Amino acid sequence: MNKFSGVKSQSHTQSVDFSSNRVVKLFGTRLPIIQAGMVWVSGGKLAAAASNAGALGIIGAGSMNLDLLKHHILKAKALTKNPLAVNLPLLYHGIEEQIALCLDLGIKVFFTSAGSPKKYTGMLKGNNCIVVHVTSTPDLAKKCEDAGVDAVVAEGFEAGGHNGRDEITTMVLIPEVVDAVKIPVIAAGGIGDGRQICAAFALGASGVQMGSRFAATVESSAHPNFRQAIIQSTPGSTMLCMKKGVPVRLLKNKFYDEVSSLEQRGGTVEELHTLLGKGRAKAGMLDGDLENGELEIGQVSGMIRDIPTCEELVTRLVVEYAQAVSNLPR
Amino acid sequence: MNKFSGVKSQSHTQSVDFSSNRVVKLFGTRLPIIQAGMVWVSGGKLAAAASNAGALGIIGAGSMNLDLLKHHILKAKALTKNPLAVNLPLLYHGIEEQIALCLDLGIKVFFTSAGSPKKYTGMLKGNNCIVVHVTSTPDLAKKCEDAGVDAVVAEGFEAGGHNGRDEITTMVLIPEVVDAVKIPVIAAGGIGDGRQICAAFALGASGVQMGSRFAATVESSAHPNFRQAIIQSTPGSTMLCMKKGVPVRLLKNKFYDEVSSLEQRGGTVEELHTLLGKGRAKAGMLDGDLENGELEIGQVSGMIRDIPTCEELVTRLVVEYAQAVSNLPR
Repeated sequence: MNKFSGVKSQSHTQSVDFSSNRVVKLFGTRLPIIQAGMVWVSGGKLAAAASNAGALGIIGAGSMNLDLLKHHILKAKALTKNPLAVNLPLLYHGIEEQIALCLDLGIKVFFTSAGSPKKYTGMLKGNNCIVVHVTSTPDLAKKCEDAGVDAVVAEGFEAGGHNGRDEITTMVLIPEVVDAVKIPVIAAGGIGDGRQICAAFALGASGVQMGSRFAATVESSAHPNFRQAIIQSTPGSTMLCMKKGVPVRLLKNKFYDEVSSLEQRGGTVEELHTLLGKGRAKAGMLDGDLENGELEIGQVSGMIRDIPTCEELVTRLVVEYAQAVSNLPR
Repeated sequence: MNKFSGVKSQSHTQSVDFSSNRVVKLFGTRLPIIQAGMVWVSGGKLAAAASNAGALGIIGAGSMNLDLLKHHILKAKALTKNPLAVNLPLLYHGIEEQIALCLDLGIKVFFTSAGSPKKYTGMLKGNNCIVVHVTSTPDLAKKCEDAGVDAVVAEGFEAGGHNGRDEITTMVLIPEVVDAVKIPVIAAGGIGDGRQICAAFALGASGVQMGSRFAATVESSAHPNFRQAIIQSTPGSTMLCMKKGVPVRLLKNKFYDEVSSLEQRGGTVEELHTLLGKGRAKAGMLDGDLENGELEIGQVSGMIRDIPTCEELVTRLVVEYAQAVSNLPR
């Protein structure tokens, strides 16, 4: 089975006019596609490649100390002149130093997550930056808007990484958030091909953020073992777990089995933290330990079957999108 | 917040050409919309009203003994000349008598679920019936196709009632199933308005099955208390639970709290069965016990804010669908 069998890329050369799209206007990109910031996966190389392909590339700062973040920002800037962003999980120690470094190095677009949008939005806007906050409920989206952010990422249950507790899926979350706010809504979770981009736009989104699909590209920092595990995964290969702590969607492996078994027995948060230990995410995603590493990935990984360059990927996504639109009864 | 604020129904009078749609051709309906069979909620009155409105109405036989099923089929046939279907969960005792009764009364469209598609499809096809089986994975969809069914319902994690164990959401499941089979795919789970219908079609579905939205109509058999609870629910009001037994999505209430608490403690399947007891679903959905009853509903209930007639609902859905299509960048 080829997941792209529904779309004959070669026979379609449609271009799509995104010039009046709100996300394209906000970021100054060619396309309303955002490459998600991902710990251990989205460094300067991936972000620059995504930006060069017409998407918005994001450096995932969550796994970086100051020196490494500086290295990746400088690397990205050397590789592209197109718009770039940094994703900052606001919960980490040292967040203010990270923000100061980004501003020093000329970063103008910030995606913030895992914390209050009130805390840094005003300061960043005062520095003429664009601020986008990640949310998993319409209520939080409204709070983001009230805090002055320029757009929100609405991330559904099917997304990889850390997810909301209400388990609201992209299909339901996007129209709920679109109805709750006036600012542009970027859909995330379950988006890996052009049909899913078209679906996100049908739901009212003005853009899409894609993580898993960009994790399995040539320019991703995901370890080759992890990338192979993604393209070999099947529809039931991921599961949201650690719900008593910070929920996270994992690719099933030995580590997942241990977590799942502990949860079935009614294990406590403390027991989960002990099992998780330190360095599991790096071991899995960067160093390629497929047994004992933590492999954060979205449910859409089951549809991913190849490792294209960002340029090849983005070109294909637009063709698939156009095809999906033209297939709709009207 | 009005969930339909994105669509000004009055100002649009688009009609949509569904004449070449595969689901419309299969069932002989005006629209590719199916009103889901739901225990205690979809009797003859709702099915007839949905069919009269241009959708396919389904009588949910899962909660009915033979006399009651006969009553509802005769009632529906007296109220409409349009196509009608019966939903049969194949696990229940007495399923063969139910099928024989349906055939006697001239039912020609069967939606089967919760059992093997191999068991009755051949016999039903031999009686010149149309058979649709409900699936929650692409692998099972392929088995349904191999068993000779005419179409599959692919039901995502966000759906109400009993759901698949892999927790695959509609956004991911639909394209996976569309890529796995050649027969028409009907999307279910998270579909309550025309934007979501458009999204389902973008994902490759040829039709949509809607449960929660039809449960909150004038003609539904859901108790008025239950219907009020649906329109007062919010985005986080439902949760999939009882995963150690048969997973089911519930509206949060006192009964849900008890289930959830037991699950947090690592309760066994036997303890869950004892807590569930007998008659909980009837008590909640038909008799309106909002505290101790089991209230099965989809995640999309958080977007439902009114109780229209089926005719009003279906008219609005088509207008919203056309608006969603026309809003897409192209």
